[in-house]
Amino acid sequence: MARPCPCWTACARRWTRPGDRGVSAPKDFRRDLHRAADLVADYLEHVADYPVLPKVRPGDVRRMLPAEPPAKGEPTEALLADYRRIIEPNVTHWNHPGFFAYFGITGSEPGILGELLAAGLNVNHMLWKSGPAPTELEETVTDWLRQMMDLPPAFVGHINDTASMSTLLAIAAARHRASQGRSRVYGLSGAKPMTVYASDHVHSSIDKACITLGLGQAHLRRVPVDGEFRMRPDALEQMIAADRHSGHQPIAVVATMGTTSTTSVDPIAAVADIAEREGLWLHGDAAYAGSAAICPEYRALMTGLERCDSIVVNPHKWLFTPVDCSVLLLREPAVLKEAFTLVPEYLKTAETGVTNLMDYGPQLGRRFRSLKLWFVIRSYGVEGLRAIIRGHCAMAQRFAGWVRAEPGFEVCAPVPFSTVCFRATPAGTPEEQDAYNERLLAAVNAAGPVFLAHTKLNGRFVLRLAIGNARTTERHVRGAWDIIRHTADDLRGPTPG
Amino acid sequence: MARPCPCWTACARRWTRPGDRGVSAPKDFRRDLHRAADLVADYLEHVADYPVLPKVRPGDVRRMLPAEPPAKGEPTEALLADYRRIIEPNVTHWNHPGFFAYFGITGSEPGILGELLAAGLNVNHMLWKSGPAPTELEETVTDWLRQMMDLPPAFVGHINDTASMSTLLAIAAARHRASQGRSRVYGLSGAKPMTVYASDHVHSSIDKACITLGLGQAHLRRVPVDGEFRMRPDALEQMIAADRHSGHQPIAVVATMGTTSTTSVDPIAAVADIAEREGLWLHGDAAYAGSAAICPEYRALMTGLERCDSIVVNPHKWLFTPVDCSVLLLREPAVLKEAFTLVPEYLKTAETGVTNLMDYGPQLGRRFRSLKLWFVIRSYGVEGLRAIIRGHCAMAQRFAGWVRAEPGFEVCAPVPFSTVCFRATPAGTPEEQDAYNERLLAAVNAAGPVFLAHTKLNGRFVLRLAIGNARTTERHVRGAWDIIRHTADDLRGPTPG
Repeated sequence: MARPCPCWTACARRWTRPGDRGVSAPKDFRRDLHRAADLVADYLEHVADYPVLPKVRPGDVRRMLPAEPPAKGEPTEALLADYRRIIEPNVTHWNHPGFFAYFGITGSEPGILGELLAAGLNVNHMLWKSGPAPTELEETVTDWLRQMMDLPPAFVGHINDTASMSTLLAIAAARHRASQGRSRVYGLSGAKPMTVYASDHVHSSIDKACITLGLGQAHLRRVPVDGEFRMRPDALEQMIAADRHSGHQPIAVVATMGTTSTTSVDPIAAVADIAEREGLWLHGDAAYAGSAAICPEYRALMTGLERCDSIVVNPHKWLFTPVDCSVLLLREPAVLKEAFTLVPEYLKTAETGVTNLMDYGPQLGRRFRSLKLWFVIRSYGVEGLRAIIRGHCAMAQRFAGWVRAEPGFEVCAPVPFSTVCFRATPAGTPEEQDAYNERLLAAVNAAGPVFLAHTKLNGRFVLRLAIGNARTTERHVRGAWDIIRHTADDLRGPTPG
Repeated sequence: MARPCPCWTACARRWTRPGDRGVSAPKDFRRDLHRAADLVADYLEHVADYPVLPKVRPGDVRRMLPAEPPAKGEPTEALLADYRRIIEPNVTHWNHPGFFAYFGITGSEPGILGELLAAGLNVNHMLWKSGPAPTELEETVTDWLRQMMDLPPAFVGHINDTASMSTLLAIAAARHRASQGRSRVYGLSGAKPMTVYASDHVHSSIDKACITLGLGQAHLRRVPVDGEFRMRPDALEQMIAADRHSGHQPIAVVATMGTTSTTSVDPIAAVADIAEREGLWLHGDAAYAGSAAICPEYRALMTGLERCDSIVVNPHKWLFTPVDCSVLLLREPAVLKEAFTLVPEYLKTAETGVTNLMDYGPQLGRRFRSLKLWFVIRSYGVEGLRAIIRGHCAMAQRFAGWVRAEPGFEVCAPVPFSTVCFRATPAGTPEEQDAYNERLLAAVNAAGPVFLAHTKLNGRFVLRLAIGNARTTERHVRGAWDIIRHTADDLRGPTPG
C-alpha cells in the first residue's frame, strides 16, 4: 500500500487560503440565501392569500421575460425581485390549502430544509464512491418506508423522480425476466408480442411505460372494472388466456392501490393468485394510497400487497415530501440490476459489497432525494404522519356526507381514502347534466380559493375533490363545499343579461 | 359565463385566519430555514477543508442511522445536528475545488437560491395550467441556452433530469419516426431490428437507452474511432450499408461533442452528411461540451451541430447549475410529442395554444428546474459564463503543459476542452505500467485534497483530470499536479517494510 503524499496537508492549507474562491462570493451568498429563505417563509405564511390558480393568460409570463439572455451578470437583488414579481404570483399554488385537484401534495417544512441542504451538497451518488452517505441513507430511509407499510424485509427500495419512472422500471424488469435476458441484448424485434394487464382505470403512466419500452400501447390490456371501479379478476383471467391462445406472451399485471379517478383498490389478493399461477410479474401501483398503508386500518384494505414483485409509492404525493421523490420497492432487485447494469471503465470502482445506484435504471445522474424524506419521517414521526393521513380521510368522509345530504348532488364512487368524486344532478339529459357540472367546475375554480379537478366515470363528467396537503384543515374543506353549493345556486338561478 | 360565487372573498378571509395552518408551524420554520441556510453557507466556505473523498467505509453510515423509523416526531435541531454529523462529512464533495473526477460540476450560489425557491413553491408543471410560470420560464430559458449555443430558432428545449433521459427521448423520437408511428401502438415485436450508431467512445447512457427502448444493446453499433478518438465516418457508412444489407433498419446516429473519456469531438458535419443521405435521426450528445459552445471559438469545433435533429446539453454539468438539469433541444418537437402524448380525462384542460410539458416524455411529474438555470444565466451573464469556461480550458492546457514537460509522464489524448488524460510512463511492460498508474491514482486520491478518475485508452489505464467546478482556480490545479508528482516520486522510491 502506497503512503500518501507527505506534502498533502501543506498543499491543502495553501489552497484554502481565504479570499481565493474562484468566482464565488460566500459573504454575499450568505446574505442572499437568508433573503431567499425569508421569501420562502413569507410565501408559506401567505400562500392562502393567493387564488390557487393564478390569473394569468397563456403568454403573459413569457412576455414579462427578456427574449435574450443578459450579456453581463445581474445582482441577486434583481433575481429575487423578479422571482417575486414574475414567478411567485403566476404559479399554480400546489402548497395552497385549497388545492384539491389531481392529488394534493405538500412541500412540507422539513422537506424544504432537506432540499436546501441537498442543493448545497450537490452530490451525484451514481456510485457508492461518489456519494457514500446519500447511497446508504437512501437504502435506510426506503427501508423505513417499507417497515411503515408493513412489507416483508425482502423488499429493497430505490428512489426515482416519478412514479412513471418507477413503474417503467418495474415493467422493464418484468420484460427482462420474461425474455430470460434476451430483450436486453437483442431487443424485442424477434420476440412474441408481450402483453401487460391493468384495470381500465389504470394511470396513463402505465400506457407510457408500454410505449417507451417498445411493448406498444395496444399491448396494455385494460381489464374491465366492477361497480366500484376495481379490476375484475375473472376478466383478467379470460384476457390472459385469450392472449396466450393467440400467441402473445403475457408478462406483467399492474394492480392499482388508489386509482387516479376514484382511488379504488384492485382486489390485490385475487390478482396475486392469478399472477402467481400464470407466472406474471405483479406490480403494485400504490403511488397514492401506498402512503395510507402506513396506517394499519388502510393497510388492511391492501392485504396481498406483500405478494407483489414490485411496488411504487410516492412520498412526494401523500407523504408530505417535496417533488420529486418516488420509491420503487423490489422483492428481487437483482432482476432490475441484471436488466440495466453496465459499468464503463470510467465508472469502475474498487469497493465491493456496496450498492451503486446507477445499476438499477437507465439514468446515471442521481439527485440526493433521500435527505428530504429522512427529514420528513423524522420531523413528523410515523404517528404524526398517520395522524395527517387519517385527518385527510376523515375530512373526505365529512365532505362526502355533506354532498350526500344535499338535494341535487350525489357522490359517484366509494371514498376509501381522501378523494371524493361527486356531481350535481340537475334535471335534464345526461349531456345537459355533464355540461352543467363542467360549468360548475369552471365557476368554482374561477372563484379563487379552491382548485378542483374532474374525471369521467361511466362516461359522465364528475368533480373530484382530493385532500392531500398537510396545510388543509376541515375549515378549508367546508369552505370548498360552501363555494360549490353557492356557485351551484348561482348557476341554477336566473342569469342576468 | 357564470359569475363567481359571491361569498368567495369572505370565505377566503375566513380561511386564512392566522393560527390555523394545519400541521405546519411557520414561525419555527423561518428560524429553522435560516439555520439550514447558515449550514449551507458554512459548508461552501469550508468545503475545501474536507478531503474530497470521505474517509468512510461501506456500512459506516448505515450503522450510524437507526434501523427503524421514529414513532414520534423529532425537533429540527436533532435533524440538522445529524445532518452535520452523519451526512455532510460522509458525502463525496462534488463542490470541492479539488474535485477533478468524472466531469466536474458546480452547485453554484445562484443555482442553490433557485433550488430553495423551487422547493418552497413545490410546483408540478405537468400541464401549463398546473404551472403557467414554470412552463413559460422553461420555454424561455431553454431558448436563451439555444441562442447562447448559436443554434437556429427552430430548436425548442425541454428540461429533463439527466442526459440519460434526454438521449433516451431522442432515440425514442427516432424510433417513432422510423416506424411511422407503429412502434408506439404495436411495439417492436413484428418490426425489423432497428440499429443505432455511435462511436466506440460513446457514453453508456446510449447503451442504456437502447436497452430501455427495446432495441437491444447489441443493436447499438460502436463505430471505430481515429487516432484522436473521433468517430470514423467511413466506418459509419460501411456499418450502415452492412446492416441494411442484412435486413436491419438503421434509425439514428449519435455524434458526441466531448466524449466521456477524452472529450473528443466526432466529425459532426461529415456525420450529418451521412445521416441526411441515409435518412437517420441525428442526435448530438453535447452533455458536456455543449456548454463550451457558448464560446464562439469552441462552437467552431462543432460546426454542423445545427444540423442535428436533437441535441442534449447538461447545464448541471458545465454550466454551474445544481443537479438535476439536462436540456434536450429538438428541431421538431412535434415528433417527440407524437411519440408520447396521451391525455387522460383527468388531465384535460381548456387552454389552447399552450405547451403541456407532460406531452414530451414518459414522466408525468415535473420539478421546477428552469428557475435555477434562469438564476445562473442571469447571475453570471453570458460573458461571465464564457469567462469561467475559458478559464477552465486554459487551466487544462497549463496542466497538460506541465505533464508534457515532466520526464516520465505523458499526455494521452488531445485536450480540446477542460479534461486531460495522462499517465506516468515508468520502465516496464504495458501491464506493469498500468498497475503503476492504478497505484498512483489510488495514492493521489487517498491523499485527500484532490479526486481524479481514470479511463482506458487503447486498452491502457490512464488518469483523467477534469476541470469543471467554478470554485477551482489555477492554484488548485497546480496543487493537484504537485500531489501527483510527489506521489509518483514516492511510489518510485524504495518502499519501506
